[in-house]
Amino acid sequence: MDKTMETLRINEARFRHHFDTLAKIGKSPEGGLQRSVFSEAHCEVRRWFLERGNEAGLATKIDGAGNHSIVLSCGQAGAKTLLLGSHLDAVPNGGQYDGALGVLAGLEALLSIKDAGLPLSLNVEAIDFTDEEGIYLALLGSRALTGLLTLEQLHSPRGDRHAFEAAYQKAGLTEQSIFQAKRDPDTLAGYLELHIEQGGRLIDAEQDLGIVTGIVGIRSYRIRFKGRANHAGTTPMDKRFDAALGASAFTLAARDISMQEFPGSVVNVGNMIFDPGVFNIVPELVTLSLECRTDTLSELDNLEARLLESASHEAERFGLEIDIQLVGKVAPAPMSEDIQQALVEAGQRLGLRQMKMTSGAGHDAQSMATVCPTGMIFVPSVEGISHAPQEFTEWKDCVNGANVLLQTVIALI
Amino acid sequence: MDKTMETLRINEARFRHHFDTLAKIGKSPEGGLQRSVFSEAHCEVRRWFLERGNEAGLATKIDGAGNHSIVLSCGQAGAKTLLLGSHLDAVPNGGQYDGALGVLAGLEALLSIKDAGLPLSLNVEAIDFTDEEGIYLALLGSRALTGLLTLEQLHSPRGDRHAFEAAYQKAGLTEQSIFQAKRDPDTLAGYLELHIEQGGRLIDAEQDLGIVTGIVGIRSYRIRFKGRANHAGTTPMDKRFDAALGASAFTLAARDISMQEFPGSVVNVGNMIFDPGVFNIVPELVTLSLECRTDTLSELDNLEARLLESASHEAERFGLEIDIQLVGKVAPAPMSEDIQQALVEAGQRLGLRQMKMTSGAGHDAQSMATVCPTGMIFVPSVEGISHAPQEFTEWKDCVNGANVLLQTVIALI
Repeated sequence: MDKTMETLRINEARFRHHFDTLAKIGKSPEGGLQRSVFSEAHCEVRRWFLERGNEAGLATKIDGAGNHSIVLSCGQAGAKTLLLGSHLDAVPNGGQYDGALGVLAGLEALLSIKDAGLPLSLNVEAIDFTDEEGIYLALLGSRALTGLLTLEQLHSPRGDRHAFEAAYQKAGLTEQSIFQAKRDPDTLAGYLELHIEQGGRLIDAEQDLGIVTGIVGIRSYRIRFKGRANHAGTTPMDKRFDAALGASAFTLAARDISMQEFPGSVVNVGNMIFDPGVFNIVPELVTLSLECRTDTLSELDNLEARLLESASHEAERFGLEIDIQLVGKVAPAPMSEDIQQALVEAGQRLGLRQMKMTSGAGHDAQSMATVCPTGMIFVPSVEGISHAPQEFTEWKDCVNGANVLLQTVIALI
Repeated sequence: MDKTMETLRINEARFRHHFDTLAKIGKSPEGGLQRSVFSEAHCEVRRWFLERGNEAGLATKIDGAGNHSIVLSCGQAGAKTLLLGSHLDAVPNGGQYDGALGVLAGLEALLSIKDAGLPLSLNVEAIDFTDEEGIYLALLGSRALTGLLTLEQLHSPRGDRHAFEAAYQKAGLTEQSIFQAKRDPDTLAGYLELHIEQGGRLIDAEQDLGIVTGIVGIRSYRIRFKGRANHAGTTPMDKRFDAALGASAFTLAARDISMQEFPGSVVNVGNMIFDPGVFNIVPELVTLSLECRTDTLSELDNLEARLLESASHEAERFGLEIDIQLVGKVAPAPMSEDIQQALVEAGQRLGLRQMKMTSGAGHDAQSMATVCPTGMIFVPSVEGISHAPQEFTEWKDCVNGANVLLQTVIALI
């Protein structure tokens, strides 16, 4: 590699200005980010993103799944495209780094290459994917782009289907347009994503950079424990069929299964909805949201089997009926060995301390990995906090991450 | 007692017709009763009740707390009033007997006495109390009538305060009018209430009738377990502050405390609300609705102390903060010895098998017991089911209960 190219760095002032501007869009008075997919703030941040492309005189586009892109063309007909991306949507009351950092770093790498006038053999595209967080359908944008999305998935979102349809229609999408976002894999040279770690491993290990070897698989379920509504004053304790007991016992058991039998896995009971949900009636129905993650397919199958067995066991123990519905399934996704190597070399050129690691979080990279060489870089999360207003990454680490991204793009173009 | 009076019985055909007509008001297509206080169906059923008084040429009234009455006057100035009552409101998806049976039996006793032209030394009033079930404020009507209600209680209902105010204002009540419903205890001769048992003790003991010796006290709390929202994929299990764990562990512990340390008591975790309540975020906050009941004040104090200690312990065990708010408090209420004796004698005259028992449920009788001699009669609940569409009492038991009420009224007037 040319020495000029090796020493090229991002425009740190511009990157900072972009980051600070964007962090204000959707920030609530209490400090959390309210930028759920298709919300007004989310639409605003996406417009802001495309304006950065217009400002630089670059082509912009919005595909049928709502993915927003800024494209630096190499000018060669039939050239493949290297995508740099992440997402601008956020979980409710989320933080400023999750997703946004990757989109801005992609944009910054693209602008830096343009500013430097480097010769290109590939198109470079900074992309903001739709609904990565899965308020409705996790990784919607990247699944649509890669062709992974099925009609069945689109018809059974996590929230209410009608609310989902109303939301995407308001954003100008249709069921048909979403499927039309699929791209021919032959047009894709690769995908790179910078993201905050969202855990504490890098800081615990005193590393600057995580080179992701693969992304864990995820399965999510809606589990209904059904007992019998009854008067909470007159029904003796031993004559109750109390749905709260099955749901509570399972919540504790699920944690034990993960910690004792599947070290490295994670399990979350993120919600319970009680019916009828009043003080003086024994709960008839508790609908529980369960999610589990681990890094290989066989381990995920085993974890799923143990969790569902435990849920049935706890239901039976308290005389309850149980209904288990799979609502989300993401296969573990290994990252490209070649791109891992390019990322390692870029980190070395920058003199950064780095380690290889798996990603416990789902990312658009796992969709992209099914169609093209894909790589991910993590930068440290202070106290491992994420999906919360306290989410924080030291600015020097954000800059390091963006420079590794830039240097890796240079190695690939 | 005059032999004619001893052999007087209710008009069974009229009682049945009234019961069947009323059971249809608010019945959902699925079979449950949807007649929450201040709902359209509830207003309709109360109009229907007053029409029965008009039809019989009797005075009717609605007091400032919305309590609906039909009055058979003895015609003597300054005479006291014997109240016969219960409530026509129902829990969501409730049954046909809870409350309605007592109001209709009171009406039927009153009409039977009027039909027989018995001489009266007291006014007899059939009364339907407001919000016995406590959708907003348990025993609202009887608390207002007896003067137990405080402004603080009215300002901190179980549900949303603004929803409560909007609902009672729509029904024509105001904060001022509710307090004006208070009656001078010197005008009250006593209160009798027939109710279904809502448990299985009478049927298990093969008895026709329960003579209530006292009503359990109730305490209810809103308990918040507060942890930290975090990414459910990247936060290792042992680094989480998961509010679901504290709430679940407490739900199981509360049951054990009731069953093992306080036999005869009952505890209910009727609701949990998760925040943010999504699949992929560790729950930050779980707000839990707790209610406990037992029959003496000292036992209730001890049960309360153990439950709150356990809640704090479980919060601490999982690294959570806890906030405990008392939202309801009803003292145990002993029934009048004299009225118990009159009920026993009425049951004997009717040849019924009877037993004395406490009431595990709260009833308007517990408000009334604080201001005048009060008595309650229970009739058997099939399978002990209540607060559910399957709630059922054999018709012969309904008739027995109404006749015991009638015979007791005759003994008191």
